[in-house]
Amino acid sequence: MLIMAPSILSADFKNLGEDLRRIDKAGAEYVHVDVMDGEFVPSISLGMPVIKSARSATDRVFDVHLMVNNPERYIDDFVECGADLITIHAEACNHLDRTINQIKDKGVKVGVSLNPATPLCVLDYVLDKLDMVLIMCVNPGFGGQKYIESSTRKIKELKKMIDDRNLETDIQVDGGVTVDNVRMIIEAGANIIVAGSSVFNGNIEENMEKFLAIFKEYEK
Amino acid sequence: MLIMAPSILSADFKNLGEDLRRIDKAGAEYVHVDVMDGEFVPSISLGMPVIKSARSATDRVFDVHLMVNNPERYIDDFVECGADLITIHAEACNHLDRTINQIKDKGVKVGVSLNPATPLCVLDYVLDKLDMVLIMCVNPGFGGQKYIESSTRKIKELKKMIDDRNLETDIQVDGGVTVDNVRMIIEAGANIIVAGSSVFNGNIEENMEKFLAIFKEYEK
Amino acid sequence: MLIMAPSILSADFKNLGEDLRRIDKAGAEYVHVDVMDGEFVPSISLGMPVIKSARSATDRVFDVHLMVNNPERYIDDFVECGADLITIHAEACNHLDRTINQIKDKGVKVGVSLNPATPLCVLDYVLDKLDMVLIMCVNPGFGGQKYIESSTRKIKELKKMIDDRNLETDIQVDGGVTVDNVRMIIEAGANIIVAGSSVFNGNIEENMEKFLAIFKEYEK
Amino acid sequence: MLIMAPSILSADFKNLGEDLRRIDKAGAEYVHVDVMDGEFVPSISLGMPVIKSARSATDRVFDVHLMVNNPERYIDDFVECGADLITIHAEACNHLDRTINQIKDKGVKVGVSLNPATPLCVLDYVLDKLDMVLIMCVNPGFGGQKYIESSTRKIKELKKMIDDRNLETDIQVDGGVTVDNVRMIIEAGANIIVAGSSVFNGNIEENMEKFLAIFKEYEK
Amino acid sequence: MLIMAPSILSADFKNLGEDLRRIDKAGAEYVHVDVMDGEFVPSISLGMPVIKSARSATDRVFDVHLMVNNPERYIDDFVECGADLITIHAEACNHLDRTINQIKDKGVKVGVSLNPATPLCVLDYVLDKLDMVLIMCVNPGFGGQKYIESSTRKIKELKKMIDDRNLETDIQVDGGVTVDNVRMIIEAGANIIVAGSSVFNGNIEENMEKFLAIFKEYEK
Amino acid sequence: MLIMAPSILSADFKNLGEDLRRIDKAGAEYVHVDVMDGEFVPSISLGMPVIKSARSATDRVFDVHLMVNNPERYIDDFVECGADLITIHAEACNHLDRTINQIKDKGVKVGVSLNPATPLCVLDYVLDKLDMVLIMCVNPGFGGQKYIESSTRKIKELKKMIDDRNLETDIQVDGGVTVDNVRMIIEAGANIIVAGSSVFNGNIEENMEKFLAIFKEYEK
Repeated sequence: MLIMAPSILSADFKNLGEDLRRIDKAGAEYVHVDVMDGEFVPSISLGMPVIKSARSATDRVFDVHLMVNNPERYIDDFVECGADLITIHAEACNHLDRTINQIKDKGVKVGVSLNPATPLCVLDYVLDKLDMVLIMCVNPGFGGQKYIESSTRKIKELKKMIDDRNLETDIQVDGGVTVDNVRMIIEAGANIIVAGSSVFNGNIEENMEKFLAIFKEYEK
Repeated sequence: MLIMAPSILSADFKNLGEDLRRIDKAGAEYVHVDVMDGEFVPSISLGMPVIKSARSATDRVFDVHLMVNNPERYIDDFVECGADLITIHAEACNHLDRTINQIKDKGVKVGVSLNPATPLCVLDYVLDKLDMVLIMCVNPGFGGQKYIESSTRKIKELKKMIDDRNLETDIQVDGGVTVDNVRMIIEAGANIIVAGSSVFNGNIEENMEKFLAIFKEYEK
Repeated sequence: MLIMAPSILSADFKNLGEDLRRIDKAGAEYVHVDVMDGEFVPSISLGMPVIKSARSATDRVFDVHLMVNNPERYIDDFVECGADLITIHAEACNHLDRTINQIKDKGVKVGVSLNPATPLCVLDYVLDKLDMVLIMCVNPGFGGQKYIESSTRKIKELKKMIDDRNLETDIQVDGGVTVDNVRMIIEAGANIIVAGSSVFNGNIEENMEKFLAIFKEYEK
Repeated sequence: MLIMAPSILSADFKNLGEDLRRIDKAGAEYVHVDVMDGEFVPSISLGMPVIKSARSATDRVFDVHLMVNNPERYIDDFVECGADLITIHAEACNHLDRTINQIKDKGVKVGVSLNPATPLCVLDYVLDKLDMVLIMCVNPGFGGQKYIESSTRKIKELKKMIDDRNLETDIQVDGGVTVDNVRMIIEAGANIIVAGSSVFNGNIEENMEKFLAIFKEYEK
Repeated sequence: MLIMAPSILSADFKNLGEDLRRIDKAGAEYVHVDVMDGEFVPSISLGMPVIKSARSATDRVFDVHLMVNNPERYIDDFVECGADLITIHAEACNHLDRTINQIKDKGVKVGVSLNPATPLCVLDYVLDKLDMVLIMCVNPGFGGQKYIESSTRKIKELKKMIDDRNLETDIQVDGGVTVDNVRMIIEAGANIIVAGSSVFNGNIEENMEKFLAIFKEYEK
Repeated sequence: MLIMAPSILSADFKNLGEDLRRIDKAGAEYVHVDVMDGEFVPSISLGMPVIKSARSATDRVFDVHLMVNNPERYIDDFVECGADLITIHAEACNHLDRTINQIKDKGVKVGVSLNPATPLCVLDYVLDKLDMVLIMCVNPGFGGQKYIESSTRKIKELKKMIDDRNLETDIQVDGGVTVDNVRMIIEAGANIIVAGSSVFNGNIEENMEKFLAIFKEYEK
């Protein structure tokens, strides 16, 4: 099943509750939350207090993407704030397997994200433990960037790796996704689609509808 | 003049615009914004996108407190997001004088903050350049902590240092301030009062009114 | 030949000399020494002064496993303390080839260790220089953890890589090894077996005997 | 009262239990434990497993000196291993006041240590909370170094600072202390004397006796 | 076409202008500039002011090899100093794809360098964007080291990777290149040859002539 | 005696030997060499190979100013390259006393430098060991900056501190020194004057002559 995961990085933080209710009602299954620390990525976005407040505005899956160095320090905090799925970066963990276990032990789902340049081999010995892999299609740190073309091949190769192992791992994509390229991305193998400015710039309901209409083409 | 600077760390981030309008109307001169990076302090709070959205909800002074390592990397970003005053930590800067100049050169006011254990001598050769010194009265990283008693002596000694040099530098205090201890803090020499949970827990208007009533005692 | 390498991490440090003599007499060929720095791994175990003292209690091979960032700083010190074999972590070295050479130049044997999530490709251009590869079967930092299942495939793939190159490189395994899973580990290709709590918890001589009896099954 | 605190850094780690019983019987009130991480200081000494084993060999005060960066990560572990007093370095803590509180909250005593070059002003706003200050009289990292002469003035100035505030804070000295200079050190104001090689090199009982005899001169 | 890129690391810095004119006249197409920061590599070589001065002495391609952590901080500076080609290390960049784009956006050529132990898979998703790959044949940090034998296989495998994708990417080699091994290196697939001591030790013109004579063997 | 120390940061690195001979002949007693690592300061200047070459062009005192983190790693290298005096930054050393000793033990002179914001108290327990203190009058990292006014008070207070202890420590100033402010600087207490662009921009001999003429006013 294809899932829409709007990234609140592009929401209006004066009226976050309202924006959350609108994407919820418009059919978003996931709420994608981008946490940036200013160290792993060159910007600081939002963290615990914002997530905690936002959590009470919707029942959707809170999908928290940690662009944070040594995320093992903050797993417990983010679970407490209401995360349902926590994604960490392979490049940010010296003990990736341990942090994956730490997240699973808290009873939430776990994902691993790869920067555009990171090869798939870093997943070789952890893929079987994951609920999701997040393929970054832009270099993380900012909203509104352009999709990196080589990402499509990466999604395909990851999909093959997952199929070859008879796994059901979700493939999430984040970065530069629009209604114009989302078919290509879905066909490459992704099934959870993050979109920020493509959802929040302009009319949220109309934007969501366009994505979901495309999703329906694939679900028939 | 005594100034009230509510810290939005304790606001409701689902309805931040509404909270901002309420403190604005209730007489807050400053909006205190706590930026935490998860490296300088053990928590991540909020950053550029939240500030940018919030900025348009009020005309009050945006007083941005950077609990961030090497803040020189992000000064331009925070000015662009609408900061009117940027406070950096002495402990987070190897080249404190340079970062102070960098902030002033952007045309905004500049403050330096000290952790509870940091001695005042670190201000010796920069005090004359500052618009404000922020004395942390709790160890930064979280809202809702208790006021550290030794802070009162530190405020007094800083006030004396400022008076001895015939400066007009503002003294801001942050951490554990309540209506019960704010008189002591004002009498020690502080004139810009940050309060988070003391403002946002319960009725904002009533909380603000209590603080401002105390302020009036000193302004007569 | 199969080699038993008891890890003194689980020894009684009040009576280390005695424990060393017991494992020595019981047939341990190697003494495995886990050095943890609190930076590469989240615990501090022991270092130079403990190794120096321990060295004089036994003539067995001192097999020093450095769970330490930038180990190039301490190679000379550990050789001086009596190490016969020094194992460094691929994840802890920016210049892995240089540090391998540095160890060899001191006249001792050299190993490279991989964390559970680290792919084998990091060995591609250094494998030929190594005396040993250490496959971590738990995330390093603590004794008494459970064997990670994916390790078995990793040992097999490493064994194939070594055989394909006609090398004689030893494969050491460390983490969660017990008399119940050691056959599987040996059959996967490992020949140097580290065991901590499985040797030191309970009766050392009996524990050693059980492992060595299993080793004999494979040496016939 | 003057207290002798032999540093086990110079003990025989093959027979640590025996060495601990000997210093205990010879009149050591404290057992000084030097934990070095290879990051804050250029050597790795010993950590949790060694302390845990040693703890059961004596009832004396376990005085654990953490030469470790960001020691807040390991306070709980060291308390669990049996520390009665934990000393952290001012230079190793960005949030010194917080870490002091963390130690006190665990129900153990707290000390702060200063490297030879560190000025006393770093204690200005935390001194009142401390049970002990440790003045390093050598640059930490190794046993057997020579006493730095300027330390005597530093001890005196610290003593004056403590007396001026009517505090009872203990002053511990560590580094290069011998029976030849210990009178000078005591007269400067120190009351807890760490000695490593001066106790463990040669005959422990005789060495201890010499120190204790000198202590008696001052206790009459 | 084969290109000679003398590394000025071995030049006479008293007379750098003269040395630059000599290699220029002797047929060097590129001037290879080794920038070392003392952090990524254990030595500090030269940076902006030296490059800026040197730039005016020759019109050849300034090929700047950054052995520098987080080089994204200094790309603009090196372009301004006159770099025509900037090579960064894969091991020094958390966001390799971003830094590659940053260099291209400044209008100069871009290379990625790999340390001897680094596997080729780190290039998988960025190779198509590169003008050049630099295979380090010694561990970077010093001139005058010996060629690492496994480099030849690495060059061959990289050449195959480039050919398989129908790319025209240049392969540069640096470290231990002499007239005795350069044929083997060229035959493996390299086409831009860095040489330091082999060019600057002894007579520059004669050394250059020997290399260029060998180049001609392959260009016929 | 007043000493002129031209900083080669502003020299012409194409003709460094020639520039060195010119300042030597024009009366420079010291050659000031600014080593920047891109980590302690935001620029990379020059290091070992440049100094080694330059050393043979003059017999003057090579005064090497290390704007480098953890300079203890490179002291031996800089002595070997010909440094006569090595200055380290207090802000860059966790074990300042140890690094001072390390420099003295190599048989060269030692200085400590302070950034503009750094208070003098950091010198309290090391001043007696120093040959020189370097007061930075600009934030280090670049040539050609403007003198920071508060530096004059700092020089005076340091001079008083030195006189109060009956020491003969040299006071060096670096940053923004010109013929227009050098009298004020000398009168404040400095005796070794670093000048970069004020010497190398324009005619070296004339610039030197102007400084030396002013020096003579004070030596009568």
